[in-house]
Amino acid sequence: MPDDLQQLGEFGVIELFSQAAKPAGSRVVLGIGDDCAVWRVSEAEYLLVTTDMLVERVHFLREYITPRQLGRKTLMVNLSDIAAMGGQPTAAFLAMGLTADLKSEYLTEFRDGLLECALEYNVDLLGGDTVAAQADMVFCLTVLGVTNPDQLVTRAGARPGDRIMLAGFVGDSAAGLHLILSKSAKRLEHGYQKLIRAHLEPQAQVALGRLLASKKLVSAMIDVSDGVEQDLAHICRASAVGADIQADSLPLSKQACQLAKSAGIDPLDWGLSGGEDFVLLFCCAEDKEDQIKNCCLTELGTQVFTIGTITEDKKIRVNSQGVWLDRAAKGYDHFPGSLA
Amino acid sequence: MPDDLQQLGEFGVIELFSQAAKPAGSRVVLGIGDDCAVWRVSEAEYLLVTTDMLVERVHFLREYITPRQLGRKTLMVNLSDIAAMGGQPTAAFLAMGLTADLKSEYLTEFRDGLLECALEYNVDLLGGDTVAAQADMVFCLTVLGVTNPDQLVTRAGARPGDRIMLAGFVGDSAAGLHLILSKSAKRLEHGYQKLIRAHLEPQAQVALGRLLASKKLVSAMIDVSDGVEQDLAHICRASAVGADIQADSLPLSKQACQLAKSAGIDPLDWGLSGGEDFVLLFCCAEDKEDQIKNCCLTELGTQVFTIGTITEDKKIRVNSQGVWLDRAAKGYDHFPGSLA
Repeated sequence: MPDDLQQLGEFGVIELFSQAAKPAGSRVVLGIGDDCAVWRVSEAEYLLVTTDMLVERVHFLREYITPRQLGRKTLMVNLSDIAAMGGQPTAAFLAMGLTADLKSEYLTEFRDGLLECALEYNVDLLGGDTVAAQADMVFCLTVLGVTNPDQLVTRAGARPGDRIMLAGFVGDSAAGLHLILSKSAKRLEHGYQKLIRAHLEPQAQVALGRLLASKKLVSAMIDVSDGVEQDLAHICRASAVGADIQADSLPLSKQACQLAKSAGIDPLDWGLSGGEDFVLLFCCAEDKEDQIKNCCLTELGTQVFTIGTITEDKKIRVNSQGVWLDRAAKGYDHFPGSLA
Repeated sequence: MPDDLQQLGEFGVIELFSQAAKPAGSRVVLGIGDDCAVWRVSEAEYLLVTTDMLVERVHFLREYITPRQLGRKTLMVNLSDIAAMGGQPTAAFLAMGLTADLKSEYLTEFRDGLLECALEYNVDLLGGDTVAAQADMVFCLTVLGVTNPDQLVTRAGARPGDRIMLAGFVGDSAAGLHLILSKSAKRLEHGYQKLIRAHLEPQAQVALGRLLASKKLVSAMIDVSDGVEQDLAHICRASAVGADIQADSLPLSKQACQLAKSAGIDPLDWGLSGGEDFVLLFCCAEDKEDQIKNCCLTELGTQVFTIGTITEDKKIRVNSQGVWLDRAAKGYDHFPGSLA
């Protein structure tokens, strides 16, 4: 085993825990390793549980996100995990590590953003913890959701031949982050505001996840938090399959492509490796493809894009204009070798 | 409203959130304000949820607690909240903010301590989150538990005339912390090791909480995490009552008294204001007092002490040898005015 955390990596840490934590409870349906854990409430209902931690200077910079946006996003990233399992979120628990310099006005704005989002998604904030932090603010949110046992969607059901689909643009959040950090005057241009909003004010696709799960249209699902390649790799690992991605079919926004071009960046990097888009990525049998596109569009107004096919060979390959690209998965790892 | 967090205080922050978060879900039994939130699983079962955050340099110093002890304690403080509601813990979720200097050996030891404790209490670790932290380690644990609806014990049931009882010594944890921080040679003496263990290796009284709840012997319950006075004040506030404490009946260990004497400290301060003892503090009707003492002793070998009586007048008063002491509640607040 590598000696330090950088070598071990985020997924090495998860492995370190999951190999030793063998759930014994008879009501455990799914433990470590999917977007949510699943616990049997009754024969008719499963409980979904997810938890996410946001640390200042790692996940956000105080000067670039308003407290209201931060409150929304803290809840939204967890709702997105419930969406990825096809569940209905119900309750939230908020633990906060607060630095002594914070004004109560900041906290009130944070609260308002979080509760506004909770109201939109019919989620109750039911508890939490408030502690002091010395250097950086920390927010840890746990969200409970429910689903019907026969509608549960995990990462593990993808089969060779399945279509791989995305329920929205990817790369906008990475493009928005680029704009924010570059401090370029471009960030003030109207057309680019959409990219900044994609990063600061993401939307969890709960209704879409529910729709796909309740109609039993998808074989596997995840939300794009670490980047398309890496999140698709999670599906492939859990399903013991591979994937061919058609890069030319990737839904990239006009604005993201335009910004990438002006910055000398390959927009594919944002689309395939950029994280935090929080759109749903899912697989379905070939004969469900049209039905999914139709019902997402007619029932929710959401356009869904096919970006590739599940394969047997346990590799993820990316094809552009008939040429296989040489890409190592570049998604976000919290402990890359370069982390200082 | 005060402008900054120090003035607002920990309980001001909780109030800020609870006044705005009005649970709307029909399955919510109890929201913000008790040891756990309570959510209706079915007619026959309630789900209990609690979350606690531990921040390095606020809750622990890396040089004074081994990673194995820290792993145990991280879980234990949450189990204690489930115990305080009379529940049976079932599942845990661990979010970690890890600094880049951590060795994987440290994390392995932390994991082993946590999982060892989980095994002892029949709890499954089912998920979590792993992120980077820049300055301080952060651990946030969420624990789920269950209880029967007719056995739920909250902070809100104490009535005037009820006896106030403690299920073990208080002040040992504060005495242990004093020993650790003072770096006195005394800390190596055999007799004082018990105090240090009380601070670093607390025990959650889950079986005791279950026993009292299942036999319907208690009217209100809490675990002593902030200190007897402050935790009793939580019960009094929730129950709209007051309390008279007999300081001379407070269960203080011989070692804590001896150490306090040699350090020129009033041991009552540790007993009434010291936090983190994690013994259960509960109230019961006068005619249940003997039954509780007997059944805790015979079934679990636990000695229970009566320390006072619930009153009508919504004040907490402390009496020693017939004299009322002048004490402002001194329990732990995460944002005291002096916090730098």
